[in-house]
Amino acid sequence: MKNVKLVSVGTFLPGQPIGNDKIQERFSVNAEWIELAIGNRSRHLVMDLDTGEINYTLADICNMAAFNAINKAGVDVDDIDFIVMGTATPDSLMPATVNMVAEKLGINNVATYQVQSGCAGAMQAIDMATKFLRLGEYNTGLVIGGDVCAKYIDIERDFSQLSSSELINYALFGDGAGAAVLSSDEQVSGANIVATLNRCEGLYRQPGQELNWLGSRLRDVENVQPLKEDYKAIEEQVPVMAKEVMMEIITNAGWNMEHVNHFMTPQLAGHMTDKIIQLMEVDPAKAVNCVADTGNNGNALPFLQLEMLMDRITDGEKAIGVAIESSKWIKGGIALQA
Amino acid sequence: MKNVKLVSVGTFLPGQPIGNDKIQERFSVNAEWIELAIGNRSRHLVMDLDTGEINYTLADICNMAAFNAINKAGVDVDDIDFIVMGTATPDSLMPATVNMVAEKLGINNVATYQVQSGCAGAMQAIDMATKFLRLGEYNTGLVIGGDVCAKYIDIERDFSQLSSSELINYALFGDGAGAAVLSSDEQVSGANIVATLNRCEGLYRQPGQELNWLGSRLRDVENVQPLKEDYKAIEEQVPVMAKEVMMEIITNAGWNMEHVNHFMTPQLAGHMTDKIIQLMEVDPAKAVNCVADTGNNGNALPFLQLEMLMDRITDGEKAIGVAIESSKWIKGGIALQA
Repeated sequence: MKNVKLVSVGTFLPGQPIGNDKIQERFSVNAEWIELAIGNRSRHLVMDLDTGEINYTLADICNMAAFNAINKAGVDVDDIDFIVMGTATPDSLMPATVNMVAEKLGINNVATYQVQSGCAGAMQAIDMATKFLRLGEYNTGLVIGGDVCAKYIDIERDFSQLSSSELINYALFGDGAGAAVLSSDEQVSGANIVATLNRCEGLYRQPGQELNWLGSRLRDVENVQPLKEDYKAIEEQVPVMAKEVMMEIITNAGWNMEHVNHFMTPQLAGHMTDKIIQLMEVDPAKAVNCVADTGNNGNALPFLQLEMLMDRITDGEKAIGVAIESSKWIKGGIALQA
Repeated sequence: MKNVKLVSVGTFLPGQPIGNDKIQERFSVNAEWIELAIGNRSRHLVMDLDTGEINYTLADICNMAAFNAINKAGVDVDDIDFIVMGTATPDSLMPATVNMVAEKLGINNVATYQVQSGCAGAMQAIDMATKFLRLGEYNTGLVIGGDVCAKYIDIERDFSQLSSSELINYALFGDGAGAAVLSSDEQVSGANIVATLNRCEGLYRQPGQELNWLGSRLRDVENVQPLKEDYKAIEEQVPVMAKEVMMEIITNAGWNMEHVNHFMTPQLAGHMTDKIIQLMEVDPAKAVNCVADTGNNGNALPFLQLEMLMDRITDGEKAIGVAIESSKWIKGGIALQA
């Protein structure tokens, strides 16, 4: 079984940060309430909220992030043996967005896989890529994660009529993309992937988050709630699950908590992340956080954390990452050592 | 690297077969033309075309197929170490349908992965599961594939107004699900998975098939064509690609064409499959076909073929399977030996 390294991380956030005032103006969600109850200050969106114009597709921003990661790794696109991408919000159902990103990067004739997943998708994609590389069939893998909310934003809509379980999403989420190059090449330097974790624990538990799609059944437009978030259930269950993952991934890595130098905790929202850090008994100085400024951009977020980590981590240091997806209560985790 | 076996296959087709007359009545596609130009006689749908009522979700039919596969394998649901599912048409974007199927089966606390893919998705899912099992971390995997067209069928719509690139889909497609139990346990009997193949060859080639989804941007409903099929491009390119995959997978397995006893050829439509068999120079008596009766049900179809294969194949016999996805021109393949 080969050793696998995280060689480089690249990210891309579309446009300028969008503050809470703009969210209030556009979506009728009180800016002060976002600050106080949610704790997010800004996020990025592919859509121009003034004109409704969409400046980037998911494939566009994933291409930018992947391009950055490949450049940092110093590899050629021809060195990439396979691509795994995680997203909850593909540009279309077919073709899969991963294949449109491959085309933008000029990558052809490789295996591509796109996992349908939310906040845990980046961890699932890294877990898959790590397994493929450990097997020894491949040398170099590209892992991508990204999400775009644009299909859920119709600026002509009367947002004041929406239920709070739908409206809260506009306070929580943002768009973004991230990517990483992984390698099993012994000559390449990077952080060792010591352990990964991916597990669904959803049996007989109501989904905490739903993301629906419509085809061409016109009446569905009025009958189906596109986004649904059970923020109360999430607040209750995610911190507990996050602590469980942390303990398990530390054990799997053969470490103790005091060995770990950096903690990438779940990034659902600013205040919730603070609560999670408290419950996990993690020293806030060791936490790698960004959600208050970037918003929760789903599959992109663990890559934003990994990019920050790669700038901080020094030789021999240990790091763990935890992602929880409230859709059907999925645990994701990673342990790294530089 | 462990040896991996296909232990059992289960499938589920919803409701009674729907003939071409009914498709003509409901979708304004001439029945005689379907018979002559496409070559399909019937298909199954989760929707009752008289009432518009939807009798099954994707999770429902995948659960039925998986239940059948698990029963045939004689394993307990607690023996399943992970699930990989392929679909182009998930019930929702979140939660991923694979996790809803896990719940229906009573499976919890395992790794689940859902790949977003069309006709090549089943092969991708089998390829992933085979790699996971070869690595030796897991003993038993459940692989599922299924698709449901219901979100693209609004029986109140005036179908005579649709473009032919959209309308043809209603002549081609059907709903269905399939599943297989894979194992790396040496004590378990089954057909050895000798080789798998998954490769995107879409660089600078226009998509042959598009499947779009809508969120809540109301004007998209009128501006976005939900389904789009370039049947001419598919007719030209798929048979050539199918032959290429066949030759490659036979070579990868270390076989010659005359060694192969059973051929599972791509199942896009009745007549096209006949043409592919001819171009591939496969003896029609060795071909495993069903599309003329089941319609092209995407991720389910390779499982329908595998189920037929498992009834036919005898000890020592060799089989290959080929799937081509025209979305962004993806090749999928498998080689099996009983």
